[in-house]
Amino acid sequence: MASRIFRPRVLDGRRGRYRPTDLVRQRRGHLSVRCDEPWFREQSKNGSDIGMRKIIVVTGASNGFGRLASNALARAGHTVYASMRETTGQVKAFARQHSADLHAIELDVASQESVNAAIAEIISRNNQLDVVVHSANHTAYGPAEAFTPEQLAQLYDTNVLGAQRVNRAALPQLRKQGQGLLVWISSSGTRGGTPPYLGPYFATKAAMDALAVSYAGELARWGIETTIIVPGSFTKGTNYYAHSGRPADAVRAEEYADGPTADISEITLRGLAALGPTNADPQSVADAIVEVIDTPFGSRPFRVHFEPSDDGAAIVNGVADRARAELLQLIGLEDILKPTIIG
Amino acid sequence: MASRIFRPRVLDGRRGRYRPTDLVRQRRGHLSVRCDEPWFREQSKNGSDIGMRKIIVVTGASNGFGRLASNALARAGHTVYASMRETTGQVKAFARQHSADLHAIELDVASQESVNAAIAEIISRNNQLDVVVHSANHTAYGPAEAFTPEQLAQLYDTNVLGAQRVNRAALPQLRKQGQGLLVWISSSGTRGGTPPYLGPYFATKAAMDALAVSYAGELARWGIETTIIVPGSFTKGTNYYAHSGRPADAVRAEEYADGPTADISEITLRGLAALGPTNADPQSVADAIVEVIDTPFGSRPFRVHFEPSDDGAAIVNGVADRARAELLQLIGLEDILKPTIIG
Repeated sequence: MASRIFRPRVLDGRRGRYRPTDLVRQRRGHLSVRCDEPWFREQSKNGSDIGMRKIIVVTGASNGFGRLASNALARAGHTVYASMRETTGQVKAFARQHSADLHAIELDVASQESVNAAIAEIISRNNQLDVVVHSANHTAYGPAEAFTPEQLAQLYDTNVLGAQRVNRAALPQLRKQGQGLLVWISSSGTRGGTPPYLGPYFATKAAMDALAVSYAGELARWGIETTIIVPGSFTKGTNYYAHSGRPADAVRAEEYADGPTADISEITLRGLAALGPTNADPQSVADAIVEVIDTPFGSRPFRVHFEPSDDGAAIVNGVADRARAELLQLIGLEDILKPTIIG
Repeated sequence: MASRIFRPRVLDGRRGRYRPTDLVRQRRGHLSVRCDEPWFREQSKNGSDIGMRKIIVVTGASNGFGRLASNALARAGHTVYASMRETTGQVKAFARQHSADLHAIELDVASQESVNAAIAEIISRNNQLDVVVHSANHTAYGPAEAFTPEQLAQLYDTNVLGAQRVNRAALPQLRKQGQGLLVWISSSGTRGGTPPYLGPYFATKAAMDALAVSYAGELARWGIETTIIVPGSFTKGTNYYAHSGRPADAVRAEEYADGPTADISEITLRGLAALGPTNADPQSVADAIVEVIDTPFGSRPFRVHFEPSDDGAAIVNGVADRARAELLQLIGLEDILKPTIIG
């Protein structure tokens, strides 16, 4: 069972079964993740808490995966707090339209005060908090040398320290309950093939992934489970480049644009677009998060991969997670590979 | 040739040859890295710039790998600037004792001003800068939840933003020269087996490694080469735990020390000590850095691994670096897998 959790989960809808360590190529032109997979159905039959309404907070829910996940989770019957820096009417409209228990809540991951207030509000309303989905995320694009250290710090603040602030606010409640789930939205770029000009961004995602892995082991005996979602590059629907930060040092960026690196950006963007299926749908990532959350406690996958551009992350993470499992077994901590079932 | 560079380099002195993708177990009780390896000797015979005195700056040279590398490089005949926050008499004494061209220079990686001044001083004295060794490093030990976001930011500042500051000061000169080398001291914990209570530290090293990989591709056409050194856990000589940061949130740390996680720290430390050979010598890492620098431009390894505790990082990095090479080949950027030879 432990080895199952530490195998990368590549769901291949075309074949209707797992291909744990193989790369999945897209042949039908749609993202090959389906949530009526045998694995999901199996878990559902045996689950004790399957179908139970969970209290969930999602960070960075104003756009991208966070927004899609909030909506999908609410439509699946959960109580969802779509947290974002500034709430808009959009969440309320969606909730009304779908009769969903979905609430917008102001939470700025850059401020511990704001995070504390939002999490306290959720707990006081429900006397419970079951799941945290870490999806607050900023991207950046350009030659690494042209970013100031302040820009790198800013990215780290949103993508890593934001999760740390939310964890520090939420984990005392989850540990007190003796059961909970952290879902981290990582990136295939932390371990798979890495195109140029995403260095500062990948640095933060690699850090977030490493932190998620450490937390997984440290929280297991408190009854807290971890699932790391590893999306590849989705060119549609997530506004991947639209909101990307650009280098503040324009002089340095210009040197790269005029120098021997002049065509790197164009080749990279054209190449990535050609590799990924143009209709890879980020909604499937949100649907998979719903399925992970509906999977019984203790049986959830450690990672779920999506590789529209087939960049190798599933294989690399498979080897890395296995090395981690082996080390923990060797030093006598194999029990923290899975969450303890308390009570 | 390209594939050779992107294979993890595990030097196995016991057999006197490479074992590129295998884990090296320590059977003789000493670290199995020897710098008279066939690989190194081969390169030396063909090298055009072999034996040439290089102008080198090493960050974090007051202790650990930085200090050992500075001393070893100076003894090997290079001009070395051992940079540190506060210089001491120790460097001068070593230089005198060994008639080495070794200089202590004040450089605080936390301050762009300090970094700029030091790098400018080195360039103005030598009209040249060939190699930057990024080894400034702080460690931290304790449950992730008990560290404040400010502590995580501080660690990132030293371990990642420090390298960014030094790069931004040094790279214009290296790019102008059309030839140079960046050596990054990463950690096997970013990709290999990860014991608990090192989350905030591993997060920064994973980020640093990701940034190094991105820079490697972006700098290749400017004639700048990259070698990433991946030491495992050395319990001797580097004061690994002595200077570790501890969690600022004592209440939270206490909860972990008293809770179901009460024995995690003891098991981890005992386990790691039992896994690693007690006499694994960090000097061998410094010696390998000397050999990498003395290897001809364009032939240096992308990574050099040392795994006293056999944690799997060489295998994981091997797969990851291969995935990267494949992606760059697929999108038509295979040339940036190796530095361009300019002029």
